[in-house]
Amino acid sequence: MAVATQSLEALCINSIRFLAVDAVEKAKSGHPGLPMGAAPMAFVLWDRFMRYNPKNPKWFNRDRFVLSAGHGCMLQYALMYLTGYDSVSMDDIKSFRQWGSHAPGHPENFETEGIEVTTGPLGQGICNGVGLAMAEAHLAARFNKPDCTLVDHYTYVILGDGCNMEGVSGEACSLAGHLGLGKLIAFYDDNHISIDGSTDIAFTEDVSKRFEAYGWHVLHVEDGNGDLDAIAAAIEEAKKVTDRPTMIKVTTIIGYGSPNKANTGGIHGAALGTDEVKATRENLDWSYEPFEIPDDALSRFRQAVDRGASYEAEWEEALATYRTKYADEAAEFERLLAGKLPEGWEKALPTYTPEDKKLATRKNSEATLNALAEVLPELLGGSADLTHSNLTELECSGTFQKGGYENRNIHFGVREHGMGAICNGMTMHNPGLLVYCATFLVFTDYMRGAIRLAALSKAGVIYVMTHDSIGLGEDGPTHQPVETLAALRAIPNLYVIRPADGNETSGAYKIAVESRKTPTLMAFSRQGLPNLDGTSIENVAKGAYVLSDSDGTPDLILIGTGSEVHLCVEAAEKLRSEGKKVRVVSMPCWELFEAQSADYKESVLPKAVTKRLAVEAASSFGWCRYYGAEGDMLSVETFGASAPGGLVLEKFGYTVDNVVTKAKALLG
Amino acid sequence: MAVATQSLEALCINSIRFLAVDAVEKAKSGHPGLPMGAAPMAFVLWDRFMRYNPKNPKWFNRDRFVLSAGHGCMLQYALMYLTGYDSVSMDDIKSFRQWGSHAPGHPENFETEGIEVTTGPLGQGICNGVGLAMAEAHLAARFNKPDCTLVDHYTYVILGDGCNMEGVSGEACSLAGHLGLGKLIAFYDDNHISIDGSTDIAFTEDVSKRFEAYGWHVLHVEDGNGDLDAIAAAIEEAKKVTDRPTMIKVTTIIGYGSPNKANTGGIHGAALGTDEVKATRENLDWSYEPFEIPDDALSRFRQAVDRGASYEAEWEEALATYRTKYADEAAEFERLLAGKLPEGWEKALPTYTPEDKKLATRKNSEATLNALAEVLPELLGGSADLTHSNLTELECSGTFQKGGYENRNIHFGVREHGMGAICNGMTMHNPGLLVYCATFLVFTDYMRGAIRLAALSKAGVIYVMTHDSIGLGEDGPTHQPVETLAALRAIPNLYVIRPADGNETSGAYKIAVESRKTPTLMAFSRQGLPNLDGTSIENVAKGAYVLSDSDGTPDLILIGTGSEVHLCVEAAEKLRSEGKKVRVVSMPCWELFEAQSADYKESVLPKAVTKRLAVEAASSFGWCRYYGAEGDMLSVETFGASAPGGLVLEKFGYTVDNVVTKAKALLG
Repeated sequence: MAVATQSLEALCINSIRFLAVDAVEKAKSGHPGLPMGAAPMAFVLWDRFMRYNPKNPKWFNRDRFVLSAGHGCMLQYALMYLTGYDSVSMDDIKSFRQWGSHAPGHPENFETEGIEVTTGPLGQGICNGVGLAMAEAHLAARFNKPDCTLVDHYTYVILGDGCNMEGVSGEACSLAGHLGLGKLIAFYDDNHISIDGSTDIAFTEDVSKRFEAYGWHVLHVEDGNGDLDAIAAAIEEAKKVTDRPTMIKVTTIIGYGSPNKANTGGIHGAALGTDEVKATRENLDWSYEPFEIPDDALSRFRQAVDRGASYEAEWEEALATYRTKYADEAAEFERLLAGKLPEGWEKALPTYTPEDKKLATRKNSEATLNALAEVLPELLGGSADLTHSNLTELECSGTFQKGGYENRNIHFGVREHGMGAICNGMTMHNPGLLVYCATFLVFTDYMRGAIRLAALSKAGVIYVMTHDSIGLGEDGPTHQPVETLAALRAIPNLYVIRPADGNETSGAYKIAVESRKTPTLMAFSRQGLPNLDGTSIENVAKGAYVLSDSDGTPDLILIGTGSEVHLCVEAAEKLRSEGKKVRVVSMPCWELFEAQSADYKESVLPKAVTKRLAVEAASSFGWCRYYGAEGDMLSVETFGASAPGGLVLEKFGYTVDNVVTKAKALLG
Repeated sequence: MAVATQSLEALCINSIRFLAVDAVEKAKSGHPGLPMGAAPMAFVLWDRFMRYNPKNPKWFNRDRFVLSAGHGCMLQYALMYLTGYDSVSMDDIKSFRQWGSHAPGHPENFETEGIEVTTGPLGQGICNGVGLAMAEAHLAARFNKPDCTLVDHYTYVILGDGCNMEGVSGEACSLAGHLGLGKLIAFYDDNHISIDGSTDIAFTEDVSKRFEAYGWHVLHVEDGNGDLDAIAAAIEEAKKVTDRPTMIKVTTIIGYGSPNKANTGGIHGAALGTDEVKATRENLDWSYEPFEIPDDALSRFRQAVDRGASYEAEWEEALATYRTKYADEAAEFERLLAGKLPEGWEKALPTYTPEDKKLATRKNSEATLNALAEVLPELLGGSADLTHSNLTELECSGTFQKGGYENRNIHFGVREHGMGAICNGMTMHNPGLLVYCATFLVFTDYMRGAIRLAALSKAGVIYVMTHDSIGLGEDGPTHQPVETLAALRAIPNLYVIRPADGNETSGAYKIAVESRKTPTLMAFSRQGLPNLDGTSIENVAKGAYVLSDSDGTPDLILIGTGSEVHLCVEAAEKLRSEGKKVRVVSMPCWELFEAQSADYKESVLPKAVTKRLAVEAASSFGWCRYYGAEGDMLSVETFGASAPGGLVLEKFGYTVDNVVTKAKALLG
């Protein structure tokens, strides 16, 4: 080891190591190996390079730090405690992984201020990092002036072998290379160990060469355990290369310092045990008690507080200058930072009457997106190579590319999972960005890991999902969602909205734009749909509402969503003409309906009316709660089939006549 | 173009092209671009190299062909029709993408005999190819003898830019490189166009270099449109390299031959239109009517029939010799090919009594897997780097690695999605292999694309998913499934089984092993669970059953699954001691219960008993169908939390006392 064991730097590094060792030991649970091995690189980064303000973790222009290998979170908690964040106290560390601690088992942005993104499911963090860097590049291009720089920070990521094995990281890193994100610097903690043991058993590819193939600048620190200057030199070199992201492979020993468990799978995810903790203390000349930090080390770390204050003060000065010179842009910038929508933005939402042309809701979505893009400059996003099927291009802007980061149309490529994780990062960069992404609804299966994390992280990502049923037709069952809506509705804290027509599409976007803590997924039709009488933007916010009704207590309620609402409307007319009292309920969003008052819910779906027919071109899974024990549903219980969409719908029974038949069967 | 336009080979290649052009034109839907560009490489492969028998598409030792870029399926249908497969008639091609055609919008193994795997969602096919090659390597190592070869075929894959952008393909190809699968040969149709246009907008990485980094042998055919000999030479060279998979990058022009649309996104996924079809005919000197194939070309293609018959005859001879020399192995081999389980295998399933030690069901799973491995040599699989958490190691075998393909423990690495897609390929290699894979239940989100395809493809993959609830504890909400069970239960044709104890675990495996057309996903606990009175292997097959009951009609039914069944049992005892009549229903599998007779279902959950409490440490989504309008559920409606598992369960209300309280509230 090149660092003398009792040098101040060694004390600092070992402070990180032993906080991790002791916290995991006390919890009898956790991952000490990564913090022990990655402590040197993390120390050099946080001590010599990274710009952050522990006393204001939300300072806008901070460098972003992401621990993609989130299981090693004691590394981050140790750094945060040591550098003076108030959000991680010593008590939190002592109660690592315990109920109520701000030091939970993986880094969670919603639990611990200063954690940028929620990581843990491997591969997500590096993709979030790509998103953070994209957000920085975009805002820098939009707001910086030749004489005044407001947006200028790095995104640093530590990732491990596990992250590098996950395909999602490859997707995002390929895109990062394409985009030339020069301010993204990733440290690959190359320790050759994953949970099952040596990476020799499953992962022998040349990671550096792969990143070179992606177009990254790749460096290698051969002794990541001791050569702090080499780590520092690599960071310096990384910063000099401004047109490509940098991957610094840092070769380390997992569990460094543990005489018997270092460099084994055994130290990856388990406490060392009393004896080995003792042996490690001896081996690293660490005479301190558990959770005791030498004063010198703490003082050194805590220099971050003053440093951070001065960074922020300097930036505040720049902002003051900017305000003077560029008042309009400054106002816009501050609006963005505050996450405030411009007044009256919602007036841009298109509205429709039944006389308006029949359109696929994906076309309504296109019109709405474009109308909003004019009044919401913070709206940006794109599709996973289905731009002209999803209809997500913003006409008012160009393509987000190297040299054109100010543009708002992002081409994600055929990389759904990476797209989702990138959008999480962009959305969590600051409260102002409104980020959308798009693919066919069925391919949410590919990005489900990222969608779940958006919901968990309270990141208001906007999902524009088209081709939302078997009605998509010829592409067949691999492309036709059936169970997809159910699977998405099951995710906590996610709005799933399936609009019936143009007004409901506008209503869906209103929710999506306003919901900054709950992501919104909109499901749009491929096929044309009539604009219905009685739909409105406001009604969507209620989740479900009475679209049309007979006088008095209905004999039957037809409940539809999306492309099946018009079938319900037409069937109701037929049934009424035969003297039946029929109510039609449009139900674009279950989650919003559940959030209404009991009275409102009863007013829409009265308990007394038990004859209910739900109509949705999808699985009935979960629907019983609305159609009830005496109700029925017109649903799709198998996979779909390849044929023209109209015919597929007809073959699966989605006709007015069949709705009428099923309704009559219910009425007896 | 190096091929004279009227040479026999050109006629053959143009026959493929125009079948694709005309079929898409007639359907007014489909993807003509890929077949037009990839026809030369496909022709060379199918004409000069590939060993298959059109009249017996299931001939065991055939080379496997996978069109990973499944949207270009007219390429494969054209080849199958032209070479004489009975499963694709000219009428099927004329009704491409129409209801009932054997030429659906993407290749579907269950619709068209001779299609090996279902592709379309990009990236899956190449991973299936890796799985097919792994199956071949395994069976070759197991059965071939120095003097007699039974298993010896190549796996050929055509994949495009889209497949290469998807992370799932990177996962599987990295593993394929590690494993050194020399008989896997992939053609990368390098046409620089995806749906959104030029790959320059999002995909500029060096794909060849990336594959080299994975450890593949990489070749490049610069003129894939005309240089048939270069294509052939590359295949020859690929076959010579036996210790690495080969990727042949074949540079082509998408939509080759179309004077105005070739090399544009416009020809990727839309019909050419009448004028352009005409112009393409002129440009390629193609004077034939739509769907007309020149006799010379058809004769040339149909040579495949005799060739195929002789390949198969030759192999049958080898098999006859093998039978003579190695009678036992031959019997075993033929059993495998027939997909017959050995008699009495199920006697190996462990059974338990309440006196047996409390175990986590993942431990029961470990015991069952190992017991089965002894009697089912066709059982093989592994984990995505969680072997010692999932407990999936087969003690009776070694690790599946280069030089040890006969072994049955596969290390998939941290590659859940790739693992799922590889297992689909392995399972579809032949009816006999029983393939399992494992990770934490929550990470099924990462591999959902592949699970859905297993269900759609009728591939009986076995999923061993552990850590199945918030009870997993400290890892916290990123690792705790909540909505995961619901999302999986929503998938058609998938058994989701959550066993309560050892007997139910054995029952789950019995289903999993026997269900060759329906994949089975088992959800196992991290934490220890008692062995219950009344559980049995047979009861699992019913999906739900009465575990314990009071005399007479019950006042209340408690319905539990997995780790919550014992809570129901204990709560029932308490309630009975207070004079309540309580039935306990264990419900390990919804899908199996739904398949029972109406009478049986009524006998377990009588309509008359409306006071029902469901208890599952998961989302209530979908459960209303069982607990009904007057019932209730003890469920988890938010994400979980990081703390020791027992405490998390307690905090979320999973205690006997709370079950009793909720039950009493229902009883009023």
